[in-house]
Amino acid sequence: MTSAAYIGRDRLDTVSIANRGLNYGDGLFETMRVHRGELPMWQRHLVRLREGAGRLGIAMPDLAFVEARIAELTAGVDSGVLKLLLTRGEGGRGYAPPLDAAPTWSLSLLPLPTPQGALRLHACETRLAMQPALAGIKHCNRLEQVLGRADAERASCDEGLMRDMAGNPVCATSANLLVLRDGRWSTPPLDACGVAGVLRGWLLDEGLLEVATLSMDDVESAEALALCNAVRGILPVHALDARAWPPHPAVADLRKRLAMAYPMFSESREPA
Amino acid sequence: MTSAAYIGRDRLDTVSIANRGLNYGDGLFETMRVHRGELPMWQRHLVRLREGAGRLGIAMPDLAFVEARIAELTAGVDSGVLKLLLTRGEGGRGYAPPLDAAPTWSLSLLPLPTPQGALRLHACETRLAMQPALAGIKHCNRLEQVLGRADAERASCDEGLMRDMAGNPVCATSANLLVLRDGRWSTPPLDACGVAGVLRGWLLDEGLLEVATLSMDDVESAEALALCNAVRGILPVHALDARAWPPHPAVADLRKRLAMAYPMFSESREPA
Repeated sequence: MTSAAYIGRDRLDTVSIANRGLNYGDGLFETMRVHRGELPMWQRHLVRLREGAGRLGIAMPDLAFVEARIAELTAGVDSGVLKLLLTRGEGGRGYAPPLDAAPTWSLSLLPLPTPQGALRLHACETRLAMQPALAGIKHCNRLEQVLGRADAERASCDEGLMRDMAGNPVCATSANLLVLRDGRWSTPPLDACGVAGVLRGWLLDEGLLEVATLSMDDVESAEALALCNAVRGILPVHALDARAWPPHPAVADLRKRLAMAYPMFSESREPA
Repeated sequence: MTSAAYIGRDRLDTVSIANRGLNYGDGLFETMRVHRGELPMWQRHLVRLREGAGRLGIAMPDLAFVEARIAELTAGVDSGVLKLLLTRGEGGRGYAPPLDAAPTWSLSLLPLPTPQGALRLHACETRLAMQPALAGIKHCNRLEQVLGRADAERASCDEGLMRDMAGNPVCATSANLLVLRDGRWSTPPLDACGVAGVLRGWLLDEGLLEVATLSMDDVESAEALALCNAVRGILPVHALDARAWPPHPAVADLRKRLAMAYPMFSESREPA
């Protein structure tokens, strides 16, 4: 892994014990696909990061400086994952956010995950709490996802389907949920919990996906399921616990449409 | 501030960018009063830390080693605050908690907060989400408290009263709530949100406090309010937004009872 941390424009090698990200999860992050030295969906990641920074009152670092450091780190990288972490910085009296905090941010270059076949999902025992103030943004309070992922691993599954406190499906621990019903793809609303994924946003903008409140019955009776995220693209789902689905042409079709706009997500790179 | 971080028994000076506390708030903490080189409620803090570690599946560091480092750091300290932070450590594939993670933990010695007079509270706009899996323990997902504290500061108040999504009062951002009704002290249940404070636990065990579901009407019509935490003891409340209370003898009585068991919380050290 190659990584670097900064306070403003000052390079650090590690992070202080007093960092508010470490103490309170007081920060935001973006996890992005790197392809031939570029971040294909950078503008969408940036929009979400700014939305989160506005909601939490965290100052954004100088964008031109960040982009220059990203360009240095990803230059010549054929494929990989870039994580940008932005925390409020150090200090303050307890929880009180200091007005003059200098945000600490870091970049980490990681390998692209190994392609997998169709995924096995487990309906996580851990539920997502309803918190509109934090819903949609990619903040660093992720214990629910950590516990949900542990639920999925205990069930020997690849990913966990997370439900809200009312029992309705919301998303996977690190991907959004796509549900095919009557030949149309829908995805749950994220106004109370969940992260508004960048690829989910692209699919909505392209008219390939619509938002609909779904029950677990709707998911279990669906024609097909898939997951999406900005690193791995569209991932077919083979099973949700005991319920299994055969491959569906609508999943392959959605992947082809994505690959037309973003060729790095083509089938040859991530087998169905 | 004096601080030190460790992986197991190995001393670090700072924390890695890959630390899961920093990335996901995947950790726990205790904030403890130091008095003449001792931690008066250490056993109660330890019980809560172990409860949290069990709930999150985080390994506890070697207790004798931790206690020896605490003794070194607090030796000769007349009064102060010791923060113990325990994170799951580094690594793992995304949210998945690594089975073999070596927990990273740190100790920080901070000054005792300046004593204040009776507090002014603000009913925070930010609500607490209902999440039984995380309720009660002192984990590091604290964005709700950060936002709540910011609400209180914007209202020029000393602390924020946090309500759950149903509108019922739960606790302050960094203290538990004590409500005097019919001459008896009660405090809200914490099975869906909030932190089970160590001093709250002592008051319950001593029979000085009982748990009761309370509405905002119950709080506003109370005979007196107070807050409690293990660093500052029992703090009288002067006002909740527009509602004000004169000093009440039951608050002074409760503080006397605490000072009999724990003299460091005597009135002379924290004026009413």
